[in-house]
Amino acid sequence: MSDDPNCVFCRIVRGELPSRKAHEDAEILVFHDIHPVAPMHLLMIPKRHIVSMAELADDDAPLMGRMMVLARQLAESQGSVGGFRLIANTGQIGRQDVYHLHFHLLGGDRPLPGMIAKV
Amino acid sequence: MSDDPNCVFCRIVRGELPSRKAHEDAEILVFHDIHPVAPMHLLMIPKRHIVSMAELADDDAPLMGRMMVLARQLAESQGSVGGFRLIANTGQIGRQDVYHLHFHLLGGDRPLPGMIAKV
Repeated sequence: MSDDPNCVFCRIVRGELPSRKAHEDAEILVFHDIHPVAPMHLLMIPKRHIVSMAELADDDAPLMGRMMVLARQLAESQGSVGGFRLIANTGQIGRQDVYHLHFHLLGGDRPLPGMIAKV
Repeated sequence: MSDDPNCVFCRIVRGELPSRKAHEDAEILVFHDIHPVAPMHLLMIPKRHIVSMAELADDDAPLMGRMMVLARQLAESQGSVGGFRLIANTGQIGRQDVYHLHFHLLGGDRPLPGMIAKV
Protein backbone atom coordinates (compact mmCIF):
# COMPACT_ATOMS: atom_id res chain seq x y z
CA MET A 1 0.00 0.00 0.00
CA SER A 2 2.50 2.64 1.16
CA ASP A 3 5.43 2.07 -1.04
CA ASP A 4 7.62 5.15 -0.95
CA PRO A 5 10.31 4.43 1.66
CA ASN A 6 11.21 8.09 2.10
CA CYS A 7 7.72 9.64 2.16
CA VAL A 8 6.90 10.92 5.64
CA PHE A 9 3.19 10.13 5.25
CA CYS A 10 3.91 6.60 4.03
CA ARG A 11 6.08 6.19 7.11
CA ILE A 12 3.16 7.33 9.29
CA VAL A 13 0.90 4.82 7.53
CA ARG A 14 3.42 2.05 8.22
CA GLY A 15 3.71 3.08 11.87
CA GLU A 16 7.37 4.04 11.56
CA LEU A 17 6.52 7.57 12.64
CA PRO A 18 3.97 8.40 15.33
CA SER A 19 0.69 10.22 14.72
CA ARG A 20 -2.45 11.05 16.65
CA LYS A 21 -5.06 9.23 14.61
CA ALA A 22 -8.64 10.37 14.12
CA HIS A 23 -9.71 7.66 11.65
CA GLU A 24 -8.27 4.62 9.95
CA ASP A 25 -9.69 2.11 7.51
CA ALA A 26 -8.26 -0.08 4.79
CA GLU A 27 -7.65 2.78 2.35
CA ILE A 28 -7.63 6.02 4.36
CA LEU A 29 -5.77 7.42 7.35
CA VAL A 30 -6.67 10.64 9.16
CA PHE A 31 -4.44 12.20 11.79
CA HIS A 32 -3.95 15.50 13.55
CA ASP A 33 -1.53 17.98 11.98
CA ILE A 34 1.47 18.49 14.25
CA HIS A 35 1.41 22.22 13.41
CA PRO A 36 -2.30 23.05 13.61
CA VAL A 37 -3.50 26.36 12.19
CA ALA A 38 -7.02 25.96 13.59
CA PRO A 39 -8.59 24.31 16.67
CA MET A 40 -9.37 21.29 14.47
CA HIS A 41 -6.70 20.57 11.89
CA LEU A 42 -6.78 17.07 10.47
CA LEU A 43 -4.88 15.59 7.54
CA MET A 44 -6.77 13.03 5.45
CA ILE A 45 -4.59 10.83 3.27
CA PRO A 46 -4.99 7.78 1.07
CA LYS A 47 -2.77 5.04 2.46
CA ARG A 48 -1.55 4.35 -1.04
CA HIS A 49 1.19 6.74 -2.18
CA ILE A 50 -0.56 9.10 -4.58
CA VAL A 51 1.79 12.06 -5.08
CA SER A 52 -0.85 14.76 -5.47
CA MET A 53 -4.22 15.59 -7.01
CA ALA A 54 -2.31 16.16 -10.26
CA GLU A 55 -1.65 12.41 -10.32
CA LEU A 56 -5.25 11.29 -9.84
CA ALA A 57 -6.42 8.59 -12.23
CA ASP A 58 -10.04 8.02 -13.16
CA ASP A 59 -9.92 4.87 -11.03
CA ASP A 60 -9.18 6.99 -7.95
CA ALA A 61 -12.59 8.67 -8.08
CA PRO A 62 -14.36 6.24 -5.68
CA LEU A 63 -11.61 6.66 -3.09
CA MET A 64 -11.70 10.46 -3.39
CA GLY A 65 -15.47 10.41 -3.06
CA ARG A 66 -15.27 8.37 0.10
CA MET A 67 -12.82 10.90 1.52
CA MET A 68 -15.25 13.77 0.86
CA VAL A 69 -18.04 12.01 2.74
CA LEU A 70 -15.60 11.12 5.50
CA ALA A 71 -14.67 14.81 5.85
CA ARG A 72 -18.25 15.55 6.84
CA GLN A 73 -18.34 12.66 9.30
CA LEU A 74 -15.05 13.73 10.88
CA ALA A 75 -16.09 17.35 11.29
CA GLU A 76 -19.10 16.07 13.22
CA SER A 77 -17.22 13.58 15.34
CA GLN A 78 -14.46 16.08 16.12
CA GLY A 79 -16.96 18.66 17.33
CA SER A 80 -16.71 21.18 14.50
CA VAL A 81 -20.46 21.16 14.08
CA GLY A 82 -20.72 24.72 12.75
CA GLY A 83 -18.77 23.97 9.62
CA PHE A 84 -15.27 23.38 8.34
CA ARG A 85 -12.89 24.05 5.48
CA LEU A 86 -11.31 21.48 3.21
CA ILE A 87 -8.09 22.35 1.35
CA ALA A 88 -5.83 20.41 -0.97
CA ASN A 89 -2.62 22.03 -2.17
CA THR A 90 -1.12 20.63 -5.34
CA GLY A 91 2.33 21.22 -6.79
CA GLN A 92 4.53 24.26 -6.55
CA ILE A 93 1.75 26.67 -7.57
CA GLY A 94 -0.46 25.28 -4.81
CA ARG A 95 2.41 25.33 -2.28
CA GLN A 96 2.15 21.60 -1.60
CA ASP A 97 4.40 20.75 1.33
CA VAL A 98 4.39 16.95 1.50
CA TYR A 99 4.23 15.12 -1.81
CA HIS A 100 1.69 12.54 -0.72
CA LEU A 101 -1.86 13.62 -1.50
CA HIS A 102 -3.57 15.08 1.57
CA PHE A 103 -6.64 17.10 2.41
CA HIS A 104 -6.44 19.60 5.23
CA LEU A 105 -9.65 19.62 7.28
CA LEU A 106 -9.92 22.77 9.38
CA GLY A 107 -12.56 23.73 11.90
CA GLY A 108 -13.29 24.87 15.39
CA ASP A 109 -15.69 26.98 17.37
CA ARG A 110 -15.30 30.31 15.57
CA PRO A 111 -15.18 31.33 11.91
CA LEU A 112 -11.90 30.61 10.14
CA PRO A 113 -9.94 33.49 8.58
CA GLY A 114 -10.69 34.56 5.02
CA MET A 115 -10.11 31.95 2.38
CA ILE A 116 -7.06 33.41 0.69
CA ALA A 117 -5.30 36.71 0.21
CA LYS A 118 -5.69 38.21 -3.23
CA VAL A 119 -2.78 37.18 -5.44
CA MET B 1 -31.91 18.81 -10.90
CA SER B 2 -31.57 22.38 -9.63
CA ASP B 3 -34.58 22.83 -7.50
CA ASP B 4 -34.00 25.82 -5.24
CA PRO B 5 -35.68 28.77 -6.96
CA ASN B 6 -33.73 31.36 -4.98
CA CYS B 7 -30.24 29.78 -5.06
CA VAL B 8 -27.90 31.83 -7.26
CA PHE B 9 -25.95 28.74 -8.37
CA CYS B 10 -29.16 26.87 -9.24
CA ARG B 11 -30.13 29.90 -11.33
CA ILE B 12 -26.77 29.72 -13.13
CA VAL B 13 -27.35 26.01 -13.79
CA ARG B 14 -30.78 26.78 -15.24
CA GLY B 15 -29.33 29.54 -17.43
CA GLU B 16 -31.31 32.27 -15.67
CA LEU B 17 -28.06 33.99 -14.72
CA PRO B 18 -25.02 34.21 -17.00
CA SER B 19 -21.71 32.50 -16.33
CA ARG B 20 -18.47 31.88 -18.17
CA LYS B 21 -18.42 28.11 -18.31
CA ALA B 22 -15.29 25.97 -18.22
CA HIS B 23 -17.00 22.56 -18.13
CA GLU B 24 -20.49 21.14 -18.17
CA ASP B 25 -21.83 17.61 -18.07
CA ALA B 26 -25.01 15.96 -16.83
CA GLU B 27 -24.13 16.34 -13.16
CA ILE B 28 -21.44 19.02 -12.84
CA LEU B 29 -21.02 22.65 -13.90
CA VAL B 30 -17.77 24.59 -13.69
CA PHE B 31 -17.59 28.32 -14.27
CA HIS B 32 -15.23 31.22 -13.64
CA ASP B 33 -15.66 33.10 -10.36
CA ILE B 34 -16.79 36.66 -11.05
CA HIS B 35 -14.48 37.90 -8.29
CA PRO B 36 -11.28 35.92 -8.94
CA VAL B 37 -8.60 35.86 -6.25
CA ALA B 38 -6.07 34.10 -8.50
CA PRO B 39 -5.30 34.02 -12.25
CA MET B 40 -7.35 30.82 -12.46
CA HIS B 41 -10.37 30.81 -10.15
CA LEU B 42 -13.04 28.30 -11.06
CA LEU B 43 -16.11 27.20 -9.14
CA MET B 44 -17.05 23.53 -9.47
CA ILE B 45 -20.61 22.72 -8.45
CA PRO B 46 -22.95 19.76 -8.59
CA LYS B 47 -25.97 20.74 -10.66
CA ARG B 48 -28.20 19.24 -8.00
CA HIS B 49 -28.79 21.55 -5.05
CA ILE B 50 -26.62 20.12 -2.27
CA VAL B 51 -26.39 22.81 0.40
CA SER B 52 -22.86 22.09 1.57
CA MET B 53 -20.37 19.34 2.37
CA ALA B 54 -22.15 19.03 5.71
CA GLU B 55 -25.15 17.65 3.80
CA LEU B 56 -23.28 14.99 1.84
CA ALA B 57 -24.89 11.56 1.85
CA ASP B 58 -23.02 8.32 1.31
CA ASP B 59 -24.65 8.15 -2.13
CA ASP B 60 -22.94 11.39 -3.11
CA ALA B 61 -19.46 9.82 -2.94
CA PRO B 62 -19.25 8.87 -6.65
CA LEU B 63 -20.20 12.40 -7.71
CA MET B 64 -17.68 13.95 -5.34
CA GLY B 65 -15.00 11.58 -6.60
CA ARG B 66 -15.69 12.56 -10.19
CA MET B 67 -15.32 16.21 -9.20
CA MET B 68 -11.89 15.56 -7.68
CA VAL B 69 -10.64 13.92 -10.89
CA LEU B 70 -12.22 16.73 -12.91
CA ALA B 71 -10.28 19.28 -10.84
CA ARG B 72 -7.05 17.79 -12.12
CA GLN B 73 -8.29 17.78 -15.70
CA LEU B 74 -9.44 21.40 -15.47
CA ALA B 75 -6.18 22.64 -13.99
CA GLU B 76 -4.44 21.12 -16.99
CA SER B 77 -6.87 22.43 -19.60
CA GLN B 78 -6.90 25.91 -18.05
CA GLY B 79 -3.12 26.12 -18.15
CA SER B 80 -2.34 25.85 -14.44
CA VAL B 81 0.13 23.08 -15.12
CA GLY B 82 2.36 23.81 -12.12
CA GLY B 83 -0.30 22.99 -9.59
CA PHE B 84 -3.46 24.34 -8.03
CA ARG B 85 -5.40 24.63 -4.81
CA LEU B 86 -8.83 23.17 -4.09
CA ILE B 87 -10.93 24.69 -1.31
CA ALA B 88 -14.43 23.96 -0.02
CA ASN B 89 -15.87 26.21 2.67
CA THR B 90 -18.69 24.74 4.75
CA GLY B 91 -21.06 26.51 7.11
CA GLN B 92 -20.48 29.56 9.23
CA ILE B 93 -17.21 28.25 10.67
CA GLY B 94 -15.88 27.69 7.16
CA ARG B 95 -17.18 31.09 5.96
CA GLN B 96 -19.33 29.54 3.24
CA ASP B 97 -20.70 32.33 1.06
CA VAL B 98 -23.19 30.61 -1.24
CA TYR B 99 -25.17 27.75 0.25
CA HIS B 100 -24.87 25.45 -2.73
CA LEU B 101 -21.87 23.13 -2.44
CA HIS B 102 -18.91 24.43 -4.45
CA PHE B 103 -15.20 23.81 -4.74
CA HIS B 104 -12.92 26.72 -5.46
CA LEU B 105 -10.16 25.74 -7.88
CA LEU B 106 -7.31 28.25 -7.77
CA GLY B 107 -4.18 28.37 -9.88
CA GLY B 108 -1.99 30.39 -12.14
CA ASP B 109 1.60 30.91 -13.11
CA ARG B 110 3.09 31.72 -9.72
CA PRO B 111 2.74 30.18 -6.26
CA LEU B 112 -0.47 31.04 -4.42
CA PRO B 113 -0.28 32.81 -1.06
CA GLY B 114 0.10 30.75 2.10
CA MET B 115 -2.72 28.35 2.82
CA ILE B 116 -4.38 30.12 5.70
CA ALA B 117 -3.59 32.63 8.39
CA LYS B 118 -3.21 31.15 11.85
CA VAL B 119 -6.47 31.39 13.80
